[in-house]
Amino acid sequence: MNERLKIKKQLLENEKISYASDTIVLPEGGIDCSEGCNPYGFPPECAETVKNFDVSRLGPYPHSQALYDAIREYWKDQCFVERENILITDGSINALYVINNMFDTHDSVVLGISPQFTDYYMHAEMIGIDYAPYQLKKEHNYKFDRYEFMEMHYIADIYAGASRTSKTYNFIYVDNPNNPTGQCIDIEDIEKIIKGALKKDITVIIDEAYGDFMPKENSAVQLCEKYPNLVVVRTVSKGFGLAGIRAGYIIACKELIHCMNKMVNPYMVGELSREVAAEALKHDDFIEKCKADFAEMKAEIRETLNPSIIKKRKKGDEEIIIKTPGPASGRLHLAETLDTNSLMLLYHDDKNINLKEEFFRRGVLVIDGYDFKGLDATAARVRLPKKEEFPKLLKAIDEINKL
Amino acid sequence: MNERLKIKKQLLENEKISYASDTIVLPEGGIDCSEGCNPYGFPPECAETVKNFDVSRLGPYPHSQALYDAIREYWKDQCFVERENILITDGSINALYVINNMFDTHDSVVLGISPQFTDYYMHAEMIGIDYAPYQLKKEHNYKFDRYEFMEMHYIADIYAGASRTSKTYNFIYVDNPNNPTGQCIDIEDIEKIIKGALKKDITVIIDEAYGDFMPKENSAVQLCEKYPNLVVVRTVSKGFGLAGIRAGYIIACKELIHCMNKMVNPYMVGELSREVAAEALKHDDFIEKCKADFAEMKAEIRETLNPSIIKKRKKGDEEIIIKTPGPASGRLHLAETLDTNSLMLLYHDDKNINLKEEFFRRGVLVIDGYDFKGLDATAARVRLPKKEEFPKLLKAIDEINKL
Repeated sequence: MNERLKIKKQLLENEKISYASDTIVLPEGGIDCSEGCNPYGFPPECAETVKNFDVSRLGPYPHSQALYDAIREYWKDQCFVERENILITDGSINALYVINNMFDTHDSVVLGISPQFTDYYMHAEMIGIDYAPYQLKKEHNYKFDRYEFMEMHYIADIYAGASRTSKTYNFIYVDNPNNPTGQCIDIEDIEKIIKGALKKDITVIIDEAYGDFMPKENSAVQLCEKYPNLVVVRTVSKGFGLAGIRAGYIIACKELIHCMNKMVNPYMVGELSREVAAEALKHDDFIEKCKADFAEMKAEIRETLNPSIIKKRKKGDEEIIIKTPGPASGRLHLAETLDTNSLMLLYHDDKNINLKEEFFRRGVLVIDGYDFKGLDATAARVRLPKKEEFPKLLKAIDEINKL
Repeated sequence: MNERLKIKKQLLENEKISYASDTIVLPEGGIDCSEGCNPYGFPPECAETVKNFDVSRLGPYPHSQALYDAIREYWKDQCFVERENILITDGSINALYVINNMFDTHDSVVLGISPQFTDYYMHAEMIGIDYAPYQLKKEHNYKFDRYEFMEMHYIADIYAGASRTSKTYNFIYVDNPNNPTGQCIDIEDIEKIIKGALKKDITVIIDEAYGDFMPKENSAVQLCEKYPNLVVVRTVSKGFGLAGIRAGYIIACKELIHCMNKMVNPYMVGELSREVAAEALKHDDFIEKCKADFAEMKAEIRETLNPSIIKKRKKGDEEIIIKTPGPASGRLHLAETLDTNSLMLLYHDDKNINLKEEFFRRGVLVIDGYDFKGLDATAARVRLPKKEEFPKLLKAIDEINKL
């Protein structure tokens, strides 16, 4: 029946791949390392905000300006953000939906990175935008290479020159830190990408959903004043641990925000959510503690997968201990990652392994690599648990490493 | 600068018209009759839900199934709604955004009604869909005429026959009850529109944002099982008075919901909002009281604008009193409306009047007719206030009527 309805072909024909689900089935007595939220929850002050909230405010449409004010305050040491530079959205995923809709759905191509946040490019493809990713290479441990990436710009240029009707990139989507690897691209490289794109009138979307796990100084938000082709996406779902309230935001130049506002109404993010998100942004010390824990856990994982080689050297009276990562101790590998980030990608040498199943068998729920473009079931995205649950994950890693 | 970026032309060139704003400036000591929320707020039980909510649930992504269950329960006397027939959305406005994205943004035309919900067609136009409205006629007191409306289908058909490249309607958008008039189209007429559209493979969107103010039996939800080309939109923002939590939903056949799910993730509507909305749906008795009050207020307005002519007749021993609306007492008119609905459209004979300003001067904030397609500043949308605030509105109406 539906085939006859005049709706988009791709919606009828293509099937969606996504790891997002609102029902989580944990292995018995197991731990969740799948969902991208913060295992430590949110700053405890947010609970007070809920408790003290005047419930009658749920009646009218959302009018609170608290979140706008908090965002401006949050960035004030990095840059001057005005109200007109901000669009608040129901989670950062809705920010991405609005952004994709800025582009023509017949003639647009977005340059992405593979693997990256699956739901992003799925939406792009479903509404009619072509997704052309730069592939992170396994042989380089999935490390992002700006030179290779920018080479793709160049190709796009040539392609444009050959024919006026040829599709060229009109925008670039980079998640920084990257999901699933958790790696972080230096702000210098990010700026070079934006600068290069500007010369070709290409818009750059930097999705910093996991941005709270990298240093604030590495955020592209500080570049929004300088580059009219830059759009930065943030959320309180990850670092601030408030995935349940659905609050995210976009920072960009006023002209781009003005364009986006034409496609949305001013009631995104509910009244209570605005207050809770605003409170969270005052407590980034909360995230520092999480980051320290994540870094400790990742260090232990590294030690398991690539035990350090320890060299001692005498320098005068002092003894210096030099630790360098040794060769792989088994067949499981940790892709390039930022240690303070909760996310990481693990991959296995056995081509027939189903990594998600191996973890599940050991009481750990992770995301199947298959759910990411450019990966397969020999890889898995693992989100670090709380420290007290970590031994279970580490034991599973150790065992799977030896398979 | 932005002109050079490869984004949609209409976003760069067209300006948005909308009455939606997150800042309301009331006249001093005045009353708000502008925002489409319920002046009586929400069922008081919802406050308990907030109070008893376990705040730690704001950490993970929303997983509550309570809203799906409550929706199914709410409709169970009308029809059997399955989980797969439902898509929950961040307010019904987000439902409309998803729906518009089902259609090709180069070759689609949506048949609407003018005036109707401005933000709907603004979004359609901004993403590239042509909006072709059927005009409600002032000389018919803005009353919807199904025959005239369906005539437009017919024209569309001819148009399609003439040339394969000609655009034809691929979908229809009807808000029922209509915003701004508050009038209600009978379900029999709605069904005929859907049936007629089905023959031409046209999808019909029935936006029942104000649907709680009409009898439940008049909802198109009951037709979703029967018509694969029907999409019904509902919200808890209006009747249930919970605009601040951003919760709406779509009901349609499973195939269409499946298509829409390809463009969204399952985390729409926050965790607490799901619980509060679910609680609200259990208390539609709350709305019955509001409806009774609205009907009383509208009766008083009718009496002011068109004082009844009272005829007494003897029938045996009984005296029968027959009240019929008399001619206009002044120059202000009430457009066709459903008395139990909070919304109404008033329009004035003086071509130079600014009706919004006249109300504002008298302490009443209303929506300018100019913000609706097909209307101008001689009309205004008025949302009824609480009964205790009604005298202020009635006095303003009475005075403006005499201008």
